[in-house]
Parts: sequence; structure tokens; C-alpha cells
Amino acid sequence: MNQEVMERPQLTGAARRVPPAALLEALAGLLGERCSTSQAVCLQHGSDESHYAPVPPDAVVWPLTTLEVAQVVKLCAAHRTPVIAFGVGSSIEGHLLAVQGGVSLDLSRMDKVLAVQPEDLTATVQAGVTREQLNTDLAQTGFFFSIDPGANASVGGMVATAASGTNSVRYGTMRDNVLSLVVVTAEGKVIRTARRARKTSAGYCLTQLFTGSEGTLGIITEVTVKLHPQPEAVAAAVVNFPQLQGAVKTVIEAVQMGVPLARAELLDALSIRAINAHDKLSLNPVPTLFLEFCGSQATVNEQADVVAAIAASHGGGDFQWALRPEERSRLWTPRHHAYFAALQLKPGSRSFTTDACVPMSALAECLAETLADIETTGLPVPVFGHVGDGNFHCLVLVDPARADEVAAAEAFSLRLMRRAIRHDGTCSGEHGVGLHKMPWLEQELGADTVDVMRRIKRALDPDNILNPGKVVSFYRE
Amino acid sequence: MNQEVMERPQLTGAARRVPPAALLEALAGLLGERCSTSQAVCLQHGSDESHYAPVPPDAVVWPLTTLEVAQVVKLCAAHRTPVIAFGVGSSIEGHLLAVQGGVSLDLSRMDKVLAVQPEDLTATVQAGVTREQLNTDLAQTGFFFSIDPGANASVGGMVATAASGTNSVRYGTMRDNVLSLVVVTAEGKVIRTARRARKTSAGYCLTQLFTGSEGTLGIITEVTVKLHPQPEAVAAAVVNFPQLQGAVKTVIEAVQMGVPLARAELLDALSIRAINAHDKLSLNPVPTLFLEFCGSQATVNEQADVVAAIAASHGGGDFQWALRPEERSRLWTPRHHAYFAALQLKPGSRSFTTDACVPMSALAECLAETLADIETTGLPVPVFGHVGDGNFHCLVLVDPARADEVAAAEAFSLRLMRRAIRHDGTCSGEHGVGLHKMPWLEQELGADTVDVMRRIKRALDPDNILNPGKVVSFYRE
Repeated sequence: MNQEVMERPQLTGAARRVPPAALLEALAGLLGERCSTSQAVCLQHGSDESHYAPVPPDAVVWPLTTLEVAQVVKLCAAHRTPVIAFGVGSSIEGHLLAVQGGVSLDLSRMDKVLAVQPEDLTATVQAGVTREQLNTDLAQTGFFFSIDPGANASVGGMVATAASGTNSVRYGTMRDNVLSLVVVTAEGKVIRTARRARKTSAGYCLTQLFTGSEGTLGIITEVTVKLHPQPEAVAAAVVNFPQLQGAVKTVIEAVQMGVPLARAELLDALSIRAINAHDKLSLNPVPTLFLEFCGSQATVNEQADVVAAIAASHGGGDFQWALRPEERSRLWTPRHHAYFAALQLKPGSRSFTTDACVPMSALAECLAETLADIETTGLPVPVFGHVGDGNFHCLVLVDPARADEVAAAEAFSLRLMRRAIRHDGTCSGEHGVGLHKMPWLEQELGADTVDVMRRIKRALDPDNILNPGKVVSFYRE
Repeated sequence: MNQEVMERPQLTGAARRVPPAALLEALAGLLGERCSTSQAVCLQHGSDESHYAPVPPDAVVWPLTTLEVAQVVKLCAAHRTPVIAFGVGSSIEGHLLAVQGGVSLDLSRMDKVLAVQPEDLTATVQAGVTREQLNTDLAQTGFFFSIDPGANASVGGMVATAASGTNSVRYGTMRDNVLSLVVVTAEGKVIRTARRARKTSAGYCLTQLFTGSEGTLGIITEVTVKLHPQPEAVAAAVVNFPQLQGAVKTVIEAVQMGVPLARAELLDALSIRAINAHDKLSLNPVPTLFLEFCGSQATVNEQADVVAAIAASHGGGDFQWALRPEERSRLWTPRHHAYFAALQLKPGSRSFTTDACVPMSALAECLAETLADIETTGLPVPVFGHVGDGNFHCLVLVDPARADEVAAAEAFSLRLMRRAIRHDGTCSGEHGVGLHKMPWLEQELGADTVDVMRRIKRALDPDNILNPGKVVSFYRE
């Protein structure tokens, strides 16, 4: 490895690489009206749900097929112009901002469910299919797709960020549910990372390398995901706790005992107040666990009995049950609204959303330290999380025009990241690195680990055209 | 990417790179008696369980710590001498053969269980710890490590080949059970791939990139694995079938119904005859399923009832139950001996062991085609497999001195690989690529996919010192 090539050249850096007119003409020639340079369209494609101000790309294209994606990438490669894959725009770490300009590649019209193979518990979809669309398609099959990060994200986007969400304590994260990918490389070649067997040890695991690569190593155009049999019985429950710690300890003990919880979501008192206001509910504004059990009727009852006993031993109140589908939906819908409900606590605010994830043994202590820290910020900070995974989110609500609030939020985020690392955890349980966490990745994993990532980036995208300036810097800083 | 550098230079190629005297002196200076050039020791380290004749390395070293591994790799890197990681020597694809000479790095003395974190369901071990040793250490904790490939392999070796085995239908493969690795890079740097949280989306997934990389991208020295709670109840059963197909269909239906089978192993009639002879048993020599159920007593009963009904509908006989630990061990021990028992069917033989894995929907057909194909070989070919994963092994028993038998075995292997690929499966479900499957990898995944792997290899090991000549060729052929 020639060390010199890794240093940033004096005259390049992160300057915008505006697409030359020849490229824009070629893209328009290829895609017609499915290519736009409209300011409004570009602005929308340079935004996500993060606290960042938008940085628009110079053009947006809507391919319909893997072949069209490959053609777009080949054209951009020929002009060394950045290409930024775009799903539904629900990421929250600045993944979509066109910090070096270029073309936003909007995959939302690649929305075909290509195959459902119920016998194999798999489905193959284009990258733009959303999780709700896929589950609607699957409704009559007896199977479902388990990843539920809250937003109605695209499957491709969820692969790109290694998303997880409320179901992962039982069914695993996107990593555990992706079997094979079709990817367009930085040269515009189309590769398939694996065939459709349930397991393989044939060569390096490119499936997992592209999963979580945030559009920086290749453009994911097709995904084969695992499906799960719809359980015979499902029961959801909410249970209140006088203290957050009791809720956390309940989940930890249940997981350690091997209870296969389907979901275990914690909301703090402020989050409950937020969803009460947003969804016009009157939930008790105290720390609350939202639980779900599934399996046969007998196993659901068995699990519920075990967890109810554990909860009671930690001060938990009675279980309020939701058994029928419409009742469960009424229970889970507010949880799904928690992010937007939280923003409404402070009109006009943006959220600095943290994503710490720590080993289960450290969760209670890390949360206690974090709650004490929140008191020092002077900002509203609802907290909720996927406690079965050791993952929790603090939504630090700031007025983006107030530098003092932004600084306080950044400082809090930094302290939380350090705290998560001290507990042998990660700064990013499920949101990815994007722009926001690039400086933190090195603190978490060390410069030499990040350097291995950088070598991979440089080997697969030597001209740095795939979502440049995200995850790892192309040049050693 | 400069295409030229990818072509094989005229004067290098796969020639042996014998360690210079200065390197051997430096290794002896570093490790004293833990460095050997004895012919017998080298011969033993150039062999595995494959059909290949041994190709010994030039020296063997036994480091005790990650630091010593790093020192050895740095010395070898300075002399551009190959380094081949060695666990217990149980691989079966020629992984360990020193085809370019060099130093075998035997990790078997790195056998410390460094930490058991029962609250987190994790353990951290040195790479040389074997699966049996780890489970003995865990016996009193209420947790266990689930990967069981048959051989008493080292944890590091199982990570390096992305092993799986009998438990993976329930607990996943090694990929699903590895949380974090400490790896020595080709330059002798020590990196950690992840922290110890249950999930992370912090940067590229180096953990999974090194898992299954067969010692070609880095030397795995420490592994943090997931543990599972010991189930309250376990019940094992054997059930006979008049035809292999009935056994296969039983497992497929059970998996589709979401029955969380702990194990589902199929042995054909010839395999049963082999273990009868080897273990002095009198099992009925017909296609047989070895099943295991686990969970609470109620769920075990429930699962067993469901599967018994499915089995009966496919011609299965009565379940012969083994409930107590010693009975279960008596049932599973012969299954664990199946590989060596099979070799005894033909004294002096070596096995060409296939490893096809196909989507569940294709398994019955692929197996039927394969059984018909076996008839044409004129060789004894016991068949057994992890049918819950779609994975089965044919042990083609050949006299290595007979060129006609070797040719017949190679031809059969090739046909089976093509058949697996035609069914959208893989040539390697769990054994890895090694030497043997390098030409097949490209047929399975395509030249462009293999080229992406090659770029990664070249980026992380530019002097091609880590187990050279395995998985992917360093130069485009």
C-alpha cells in the first residue's frame, strides 16, 4: 500500500464537482423527463430528517431498472461526477446531502416486488420498494418482512444503513434479513453478491459489505430478503414504571432468560407526553414499555406470564393488553409517530438524534448517566429506544437558528458517544455514520480500523464518485 | 483502478516463496522453541481433511498473544513471506496447504477464554479455543455457544470459514454468532472490527468481511461470540423414512410453518450403515432424520406434535425419543462421527466432500437429481446434510492412488456444483472456497463479483502474503 496516495491532494478536497453540460445532456437523453435539474426537486433531494440544512445535488434522475442505474453510473463515472443514491429521504445522519455536488439517483420508481418465494421464506424486490408496500404485497401469503425502523423506508435504503428498529430483538436487523444483493459498481458493472441459498461460505461476504455502506461502495438495486411466518398468535401490552430503570431491567432479564420478545420499546415520560399531544391520547405520562409477544397461543401466554412477573418485581404496573389486530395497531401507531410527535414538543425545532447502543449489562447505567446529563442541557430531550438491543435514542430538540442550542446539542451528543464507547458500545446502533458521525467512527474503532475501511472504499471506488464525503474520508485527514 | 496491475506478472506466479534464513532466525529469536522447521511438524501443518496431498510450509510458529501474531506477521511482511493461519487442521477444502510455501501460524496455544459476559450473552475468546472447550467452560453459566460443525474446530477457524453445522437452522451460522473480531492485518497492525453492542451500523462491516475470508485478508486472533440461554427442555428423536424425499419434505414443511427446530439432520441409508459399523450400532439402514427440539417443556411438546404429524404424512415411522442428556448424547455422537465413519466404508480412501446448499424449494429436486447422478459414479457416496438449511454433503470416497476414481469424483463434484447453481444455490454452504472451489466461485457469482473480491484482497494484502492462492486469485487469470 503506497501511503502517499492516501494523503489528500492539495488542490482537490471536498470541492463541489458540478456535472458538466455534456453529462446532463446525456442523462436527459437517456431518461427524458426522468431527469431533472429543477431547483425545488434538487432541494428536496439534498435533505433528510437530520438537523442539517439541505445541500442540493445538481440533478436528480429516476431510473426504472438496474440497467438504467448502470448506465447512469457509467455516465457519471466518465465525468467523475458524484452519484448519491436516494430512497425515501428518511435517513437522519446527513447521508443524502450532496456535499460535493453531483447527481441524486432516486430509486423510488424501482418499486417492483420481483418475486415472492414462500417455500423459501424469501422475496426479491427492487430497491425502491418500501417496507409497508412489501408487507401489503405479502399479506395473503402467511409471511411477513420484519424490519420496522419506524419510517416507511425503502428496502434499499434500509440495507444501505443496516437499519433495524422495533422487531430486531426477535427477528434481527436488516443484516440478519438480507440474503443477496444486486449492486451497480462505481464503474457501472452489475454484480450479484450471492445466490439464494439460506447460507453460503462462497467467497468474501460482499452482501454484508454493501449492507451498511451507505451508498459509498455501490448502488444497491435489488434485494433478496428473508421472510418470516406470520405467528399464530400475537399479543401486545403496555406497562408503566415509576422509574426508567425498572423498565430497562425488566427487558434485560427477559432477554437473558431467553424469552423471545417480539418487541420491547421504551418511551420516557416526555415521549409519552409528546405522543399524547400528537395522537390525542391520554397515556399515563411515566416511563412505559411497549411489549409484543408472538408464537403459538400457548407460548404467547407463557412468555407473557414470565415477563409480567419480572415487570412486577421491578415496580411495573398492570399489563394493558391489545390482542386483536386493530387494537394492536392502535397501540403501535403512536410509537411509530414518536419521532414526529417529539419534534412537535418544540415547534420549528430540528432534532439532533443520538443512536447509542451498548451491551445489555451497561444499558441501565448508561441510561442513568445520560438522563442526568440531559438535565444539564436546558433543552427538551425525549428518550426512547429498542431496549432489547441495548439501543436508545435521545432527540435533542434545537432551534436551528440558535447557535447556543446547536452547540449544546453537539456537546451532549459528543458526551453520549464517549459514554457509549466507554461502555464498549457504539455511537451508531442503526442510523449509520453519514456525515454526522465520521469524526466519531475513529474514536470508536481506532484509526487503523478506519484505515482498512478507507482502503476498501478506494479499491472499489477509486474516483470517489459514490456518495463522496460520507462514512470514511477518502483521504487520510 | 489501474487494470494493468491486476494481470499476473510474467515472472512471479504461484512459485514457492521460501522464508530467507534471516526471517527464520528472527522468528526463532522471537519465539524460541515455539518456532519449528521440523519436517514432521511442517508436514502435519500442510494437511487438512481434504482429498489433497499435503503441501508443507517451511516453518511453523505457535504465538501465545495477539502481539506475538502481529510481530510474526510484521517479520513475514518484511520478507514478503506467506503466512497461513492454522487452527486444528479440520478444514476440508485445502485451506491449509502451503502452496506458495511460507510460515504456518498455529493458533492452537492461544486457547484462553478471555471473558464470559452472561448478562450480555457474549464471550470473548482467543482464536485457538475449540468449541468443546468453550462449552465446557460455559457449562455452569446457563448459556452455550451454538456452532457445531461436527469437528471440534477452533473458534478462529470457524470464523475464518463461516462455518455452521447442525445447530444453524435454529441458532444461525458463525456469521450470525460473531459480534466482534481482533484481527492482525497484513502489515502487522492490530485492529478491532466492532465493539460489543448487540448491533451496530458504525461503518463498513469488517466483522463479516473477515468472517469467511479464510485467512486471506487478516489473521483473526480474538473473537467475541454470541451465547444462547440453555433451553429449559430439550428432546431429540430419530425417525425413519422409506424414501429420502419424505424426510426432506418433512423438514421443509416444518421450517415453513415456523417450527423452531433446533436440529434437523438427514442421513441416507449408506451413512447409517457407516455409523452402524463405526459405532457398533444397529440403526435401521434407511433414510433417517435426526431431530432436536428445544424450549420450554410445553413448546417442545407442541413442536414435536406438529413435526410428528408432518413426518407421518410423508411416510415417516415412529419417533424414537431421547430425552435425558446421556440419551441425547448417545443419539448425536454417531451423527458427529458420520464423516470418519463414512471414510471407513472404504479403507484407505479420501473423501471428495461436496457442500451444495440450495433454496429449500429446490432441495428435494436437487437431491433426487444428485442421487441419480451418484449411481453413475460407481463409487460409494454416503449423503448427509443439514436439510433445514438446504445444505447437504456427498462424501465421494476415492482411492487417491487411482486416477480414474479421482477423475470420476471431480466430474461428479463439478456436475453437482452446476446443479446447485442452476437451482440458485451455492457450491459452498459452509466449508469455504479454499483451493478446491476457486474455479467454481466465478461460475457461481460471475467474474465481476469475483473481481470485486480480488480488489479487496489486493487493497488489504498488497504483497499477497496472507494464505496466498486461496479463495480468489491475486492476479486476474
